[in-house]
Amino acid sequence: MLFCNIDVLDEGFILKRGQYVGTRDGMIDYIGPAAPDADYGERYDGRHRLLLPGFYNVHSHAPMTLLRGYAENLPLQRWLNEKVFPFEDKLDDEAAYHGTQLAIAEMLACGTVSFTDMYFFLDGMTRAILESGIKCNLSRGLTVFDDSSYEALPAYQDNLRLLGEWNGANQGRLRGDLCIHGEYTSTPKVVEAVAAQAGACGAQMHIHLSETQEEHEACKQRHGMTPAAYMQAHGIFDVPTTAAHCVWLEGEDFDILKKHGVTVACCPASNLKLASGYANVPRMLDMGINVALGTDGAASNNNLNILQDLYLFAVAYKGYYRDATLITPAQALYAATRAGALSQGRTDSGLLKVGCKADLCVINTDTPQFTPMTDAACNVVYAAQGADIRLTMVDGEVLYRDGSYTTIDLEKVKAEVRLRTSRILSAL
Amino acid sequence: MLFCNIDVLDEGFILKRGQYVGTRDGMIDYIGPAAPDADYGERYDGRHRLLLPGFYNVHSHAPMTLLRGYAENLPLQRWLNEKVFPFEDKLDDEAAYHGTQLAIAEMLACGTVSFTDMYFFLDGMTRAILESGIKCNLSRGLTVFDDSSYEALPAYQDNLRLLGEWNGANQGRLRGDLCIHGEYTSTPKVVEAVAAQAGACGAQMHIHLSETQEEHEACKQRHGMTPAAYMQAHGIFDVPTTAAHCVWLEGEDFDILKKHGVTVACCPASNLKLASGYANVPRMLDMGINVALGTDGAASNNNLNILQDLYLFAVAYKGYYRDATLITPAQALYAATRAGALSQGRTDSGLLKVGCKADLCVINTDTPQFTPMTDAACNVVYAAQGADIRLTMVDGEVLYRDGSYTTIDLEKVKAEVRLRTSRILSAL
Repeated sequence: MLFCNIDVLDEGFILKRGQYVGTRDGMIDYIGPAAPDADYGERYDGRHRLLLPGFYNVHSHAPMTLLRGYAENLPLQRWLNEKVFPFEDKLDDEAAYHGTQLAIAEMLACGTVSFTDMYFFLDGMTRAILESGIKCNLSRGLTVFDDSSYEALPAYQDNLRLLGEWNGANQGRLRGDLCIHGEYTSTPKVVEAVAAQAGACGAQMHIHLSETQEEHEACKQRHGMTPAAYMQAHGIFDVPTTAAHCVWLEGEDFDILKKHGVTVACCPASNLKLASGYANVPRMLDMGINVALGTDGAASNNNLNILQDLYLFAVAYKGYYRDATLITPAQALYAATRAGALSQGRTDSGLLKVGCKADLCVINTDTPQFTPMTDAACNVVYAAQGADIRLTMVDGEVLYRDGSYTTIDLEKVKAEVRLRTSRILSAL
Repeated sequence: MLFCNIDVLDEGFILKRGQYVGTRDGMIDYIGPAAPDADYGERYDGRHRLLLPGFYNVHSHAPMTLLRGYAENLPLQRWLNEKVFPFEDKLDDEAAYHGTQLAIAEMLACGTVSFTDMYFFLDGMTRAILESGIKCNLSRGLTVFDDSSYEALPAYQDNLRLLGEWNGANQGRLRGDLCIHGEYTSTPKVVEAVAAQAGACGAQMHIHLSETQEEHEACKQRHGMTPAAYMQAHGIFDVPTTAAHCVWLEGEDFDILKKHGVTVACCPASNLKLASGYANVPRMLDMGINVALGTDGAASNNNLNILQDLYLFAVAYKGYYRDATLITPAQALYAATRAGALSQGRTDSGLLKVGCKADLCVINTDTPQFTPMTDAACNVVYAAQGADIRLTMVDGEVLYRDGSYTTIDLEKVKAEVRLRTSRILSAL
């Protein structure tokens, strides 16, 4: 495809007007102010459109779209025990398939090209992911309290099956990660074994880390060290890791993450709604820690609109730390794009640059909220809505355009999700 | 118009499926589960649509859409002195007219039926407001440091002219308020005179109050009392008042606002972005203070999407006060609707109830973010986007529907705003 006469945000998220961007074989092949000689196929009219790298959502639980609006205004433990766990007990592969489809539809509509997910019912999830064409780093959430025979646990076997059956499917769009759900839902023996397994097979890790104060403090009580120090001590950080939340990091924790190149998946919408606290994002950014964005699941957000997290990332820490100069739009956009690609190990992605993957999104700027466009990055970060996204492209393939999907039958998905949710609710 | 087979949020913001709602002569005339016998004109197909009261945006500076994205990531004083004031010096009535049109377009597209504004260039503003058909409580921002002859000041004369020429225009849709910009931009003599004037002519007051810590503390230094105590002492609260921000209220301030029935115009997006601090909204709600929502101007937000403030209102204070049970969706929706109508003195508005003004909006629920709709109020508050609004009706008149305006030429407005902004920027 050749995007013609289109405004772009360049690698530094500076506006360049009226550019031509050609994609070929899934890659960005040309960027320049003049129309290229080569033929890139379909010509996309770029008037009043802004092209930028697609978004990376590096912490989600896709099938939880089924739980949207089901468990509300509760403290975390009651939210989990009285609502989420009983609902999840009624889920099956088919429900997870449709829930994941809905999640992907919502993500694509908001410009997300890739997500990092941790959940269960991998058969259903992978089916939805592979059919859709979106990119995903997937792992099976591993929670294990009795480690005497954890190797036989379905969750562990499932994740190994993911690494075997599906890893690298769709020309590498689907990748298998390994997962420890969290320190408080595992044992040292299991953590070490999973870390060793990840090292042996080249998988990345996805974990929850210091999301709530209770979890953070309980770890210190149990092990005499913080969750970050615990994960380091048991080898998790010897492999590339994405650690979700990181709200309660303290002292040396920041250095540990920095030293091991751990990505923080910052989930501001979830952290606000569940009242988990405020990650010290300014400090992380100052130290050069790779901070990326996650929506978390729809049960704790309640949408998968990464533009909302982009916005919150840019304003929530200004507000909390009482400094309007903290976190520039460019820093927020980097977190939502390049930092996410790096966290997934996709080093040739997340940049609007020749030679990178053509994972792109197009924003309609012919709207009140983009008028005037005095500082385009500010319009995107502070004023845009998810619905401003007009096209989402993954590996050069258009998956979403002007409200329509090329790989998802949204009407069917909505009907299936409504049906399955109401069935589960009536059985509870 | 007769909304047919439409889901509604009732007065308690509980979902009622498949209702019929008839409007006549600008009022809600019928609500019920069965089709009425009477003829209400056009029949609106309500499948996958949710009808609720339109939103009230009770603190804005509409023409500041021209400054969108112009003054970014700066501390408040530099933001004002280096950026906002020099830009505003270049404004004129024509620019304010187009800027206000753009603001109204953005507000209508997000379901806002009425706004409370404080700015200057009233001729241009009122022209845009009257042409559009939106409701507005308008006042001229009064800042005066030399009070020896404030009666001759253009700002004061302007506001009196508003009360004379335009008050009650468009069948009461436009109302004149009076304004003291803030304690720190006025003198006691002026505050008392304006309060007396408001009492004499039945106008309401619109003020900024304790927005920043600096302003709040400086008032205590100057006058030995907080801004709220100061406004009370000088008679402002003897008339119905909407006080914007109220971030730094302390001690007796809450009782003062409660006693005088002052409405707090809470502006969470602005407060976060400018790092002003967190209003103690939970305490205000506990005390029964009327808390409504404001977007503030586009220069400090950067949009006029009240759904974003509705969302932030529901999550920001949960996060800050570390309690996920604070501020229910129903409380947030009440703030965005009925509380705003009451703050404007429009006691027959802001409710989905027979006998109330037909100020309504319709949300498209046939979207991923509204699937499933297990708790409709949660979908609206936590998951909706501004673009989900499909129809906005004021006094029974459709002003916005499916992306089109009945009273605004959006193409022309966008072109005018782009032109005028670029002219001003090139002259700076």
